Amino acid sequence: MIEHGGNVYKFARILNREPSKLIDFSANINPLGFPQGLKEYLLSSINHIAFYPDPEYIELKDAIAKYIGLRRENILPSNGAIEAIYLCMKAIKRDRLLIPIPTFSEYERIAKINNLTVEYFFTGTSSINIEELIRRVYPKSMLILCNPNNPTGSLIDIDSIKYLLNKLLELEVFLIIDEAFIEFTENYPESSAVRFVNLYPNLFIIRCFTKFFGIPGLRLGYGIGREEIINKIKKFALPWSVNTIADLAGRYVLNNSSFIEETRRIIKLEREFLFRELSKISWIFPYPSKANFILAKISVDPAKLENFLLQRGILIRNCYNFTGLDRSYIRVAVKDHKSNIKLIEALSSFQ
Amino acid sequence: MIEHGGNVYKFARILNREPSKLIDFSANINPLGFPQGLKEYLLSSINHIAFYPDPEYIELKDAIAKYIGLRRENILPSNGAIEAIYLCMKAIKRDRLLIPIPTFSEYERIAKINNLTVEYFFTGTSSINIEELIRRVYPKSMLILCNPNNPTGSLIDIDSIKYLLNKLLELEVFLIIDEAFIEFTENYPESSAVRFVNLYPNLFIIRCFTKFFGIPGLRLGYGIGREEIINKIKKFALPWSVNTIADLAGRYVLNNSSFIEETRRIIKLEREFLFRELSKISWIFPYPSKANFILAKISVDPAKLENFLLQRGILIRNCYNFTGLDRSYIRVAVKDHKSNIKLIEALSSFQ
Repeated sequence: MIEHGGNVYKFARILNREPSKLIDFSANINPLGFPQGLKEYLLSSINHIAFYPDPEYIELKDAIAKYIGLRRENILPSNGAIEAIYLCMKAIKRDRLLIPIPTFSEYERIAKINNLTVEYFFTGTSSINIEELIRRVYPKSMLILCNPNNPTGSLIDIDSIKYLLNKLLELEVFLIIDEAFIEFTENYPESSAVRFVNLYPNLFIIRCFTKFFGIPGLRLGYGIGREEIINKIKKFALPWSVNTIADLAGRYVLNNSSFIEETRRIIKLEREFLFRELSKISWIFPYPSKANFILAKISVDPAKLENFLLQRGILIRNCYNFTGLDRSYIRVAVKDHKSNIKLIEALSSFQ
Repeated sequence: MIEHGGNVYKFARILNREPSKLIDFSANINPLGFPQGLKEYLLSSINHIAFYPDPEYIELKDAIAKYIGLRRENILPSNGAIEAIYLCMKAIKRDRLLIPIPTFSEYERIAKINNLTVEYFFTGTSSINIEELIRRVYPKSMLILCNPNNPTGSLIDIDSIKYLLNKLLELEVFLIIDEAFIEFTENYPESSAVRFVNLYPNLFIIRCFTKFFGIPGLRLGYGIGREEIINKIKKFALPWSVNTIADLAGRYVLNNSSFIEETRRIIKLEREFLFRELSKISWIFPYPSKANFILAKISVDPAKLENFLLQRGILIRNCYNFTGLDRSYIRVAVKDHKSNIKLIEALSSFQ
């Protein structure tokens, strides 16, 4: 199994501490946590665990459809974003997948489980050159983009996405866009490719509740596509993969517009703060980010740094298992002001 | 999507009633519901939704291992029993799958998603002839057994399982046994094939929390096999497919021995009661069952009967979509005494 951020259990076991006592910068979760009221709502609905989820997830689909401005038929609820990616690769049968790297490591693993030949397009820490990408992609293959990209935080603008989609249509290339972090971008919803869903038969968008709505424990994501695409992918889905509590939570949180606005306000402020403060530390070189995390190159011993922070109850993400990066890169989540200050203080006192 | 029992949402929508107001004999869930204390435990742990599940599910595996008397390395937690079946078929690559029918309809669907050629062994409503089964199975293929079988309620005894396993080993046939209902059998744990797990490299057992522990909403199951088999199958698993609430619930319920004993006591009593009372109705012909449901042939119009019961808020399962059965078969769950009496009264007043 690939190691991901957010494995507080492992480090809590190592340190013999409560997982909740760690400050976790390794997972890119909303620092506000989950929306107020969700807890009470789930508490009052807990008896629903005695019933199967609605196999059609009609109310959940309707809530998502309203949230993104499309129809029920465009939505495929899934067990985290990962299940939607897996099912899309399985249903849309292509031989090859092109992955711009560095990016989320599961794409490669999911592709290999689906017997796709994986090819890389190395972009490093700079943003993607679209023309170069188009030259590199094989006709009739598949391309996956993480937008904004994890771990670099770079964002492909919406005009470039449209240009790319037209070129890919000519090349009969199927495009998956993972928008797991799109709601954290400053110009959301303008930054999202959702508007293209019904115009392009070669587009599938992935979203999740995990990051923005702060519920990684519930495993809730969804795919967005034209009705024909959704129906094609659904044929490969196992029944009831989203459980009742996730279903209920999903329906609840999307209505909370003040949580959504407050999150975006704080992330913008704190991203700027964290970037500025990280830049002041002589051995850290952060890259500008449009998302809720910051990638940085470090010129100190990564193992020593990680251990130093761990002793202070702080987890960060080392990027050694992002293909295309190595141990000299770290990724930190943008958290609340108090936590961000603790991180900066700890980093400043290193060495 | 195949229609299953337990879709109370659909009928609640049709009848414009609360799902919880229906008496659901269509899903084979423990009539005691879930163990006492679970609700309070989940309420006190609800903040865990803000964390990713432990990707290794170590505490859950340990709880299951203790419950069935094996080791952590023998356990693969899964999103319902269905995910474990899917992953096993995907990882243990065989060309053909033999399915004794009638049985749970998802086996066929999951096999087809995995490109297996499906063959049927028709047993009808009688129990499986093991010698005949061995003659029918192709060498180096795969066989799946539901034990006790859904919807017939018949159970293959443990000596026959052992005999079969030895023969299948010679034939290099891989055997999946779905024990979703095994804990409802009178002679559990003697009835379970778990004791053979470490002796046979061609055996994978499926269990779930759904039925016996009354938590279909949480989607929690597990596979049991030799360590090498578990490791082989794990390679195809998507991370975090069991969510935090399901993980917590699983760890909690297995400790409740009084719930387990009380369930078995009630099921035995009520199965006998229901069978006796169904036998008294002239147009119903129930088959003896070792599980928590009863299959019956009816000699009245199935659509009229279903509609008649639905008007009284009672759901039963028509068996038309079990390959090998048709509309003239129904399946009813063994529920609590009060509900069982309501069913018998309603059935007795039909026509």
